[in-house]
Amino acid sequence: MSGKIITISREFGSAGRTIGKMVAEKLGIPCYDSEIVQQVAIKSGILAEHIEERGENLSASGRFSSLFTLYNLYSNMSKDDIIWHAQVKVIKELAEKGPCVIVGRCADYILRENENLVKVFIYSDKETRKERIVNVYGERTESPEKRLRDKDKSRAAYYKQYTEMEWGDPQHYDICLNSGKLGIDKCADIIANL
Amino acid sequence: MSGKIITISREFGSAGRTIGKMVAEKLGIPCYDSEIVQQVAIKSGILAEHIEERGENLSASGRFSSLFTLYNLYSNMSKDDIIWHAQVKVIKELAEKGPCVIVGRCADYILRENENLVKVFIYSDKETRKERIVNVYGERTESPEKRLRDKDKSRAAYYKQYTEMEWGDPQHYDICLNSGKLGIDKCADIIANL
Repeated sequence: MSGKIITISREFGSAGRTIGKMVAEKLGIPCYDSEIVQQVAIKSGILAEHIEERGENLSASGRFSSLFTLYNLYSNMSKDDIIWHAQVKVIKELAEKGPCVIVGRCADYILRENENLVKVFIYSDKETRKERIVNVYGERTESPEKRLRDKDKSRAAYYKQYTEMEWGDPQHYDICLNSGKLGIDKCADIIANL
Repeated sequence: MSGKIITISREFGSAGRTIGKMVAEKLGIPCYDSEIVQQVAIKSGILAEHIEERGENLSASGRFSSLFTLYNLYSNMSKDDIIWHAQVKVIKELAEKGPCVIVGRCADYILRENENLVKVFIYSDKETRKERIVNVYGERTESPEKRLRDKDKSRAAYYKQYTEMEWGDPQHYDICLNSGKLGIDKCADIIANL
């Protein structure tokens, strides 16, 4: 495998996904995002909508509801664990294909042994993120403040559960960029030029 | 005032000071480091050697010894507080002079209202830092591991005491760079091109 694998971890509303796509475009390499969800769905047999949500977020209960009890007949793993193992496999396979950008889904941890890895964390101040989630995902009954808090909390809990590390601790990344301060374009430029 | 003021906070042994000097050289602007200590010494009447150590580190006791009791005749401030207030004044005066790089000394917090501020945090993995402090500062009776732990702890405690914020939390910075992974030259390039 030649070239770099760039993983982008990001706070909700920090434009990490957009920055990842821009970096991939600048470098002419793929940005994996929904492909991961689709492939994990195929491998695990679990609906893509559930994987989208549960592949990097841990709910308060930390477990699926009894809707999926069928799986318990085949395995003593929780559905979260089934998704996790499928996700690890899919992300490793994608990285083997060559240089790419992977957004979220603990790819920084999953690919940590890879010598060509560049690990990025994108974050921003709360005001900029609140504005962004309303613009991008629309209004909800819950306040933007609460939506940020819940999502950050569930991503951090998921990361902690499967990596035993603290999400957003600079030590786990090569570079951390404040997109609210530097701007989305500048962040993409910096990463593409690494 | 035109141009940027770049503050560089750094973990001990992460080469933050070296990177700061390289950035200043690339941009043709001053890098303030020992000047701050000298000017704080003049303003406070406290010996430069003490300021060097106490202007960004908090000891276990958190206070000077009774060597400096003279100051207590004039002020009910601790010597740490006297140094802090002199340091705030000196750093604000230096920033008023124009674009510059300021390494450490809570300059990111002191100048937080400045619209032209770029706040950088330099960190690195422990192995690279241990190797660096032995190469740069030489061997000591204490292990490199302990020297790193003590220095990081005292810097974090100082930062917390005077800023009420967590030292090294990405949210306080615009960009955080892992010098052990990216390399010193690359870090200096990224900052100079911001």
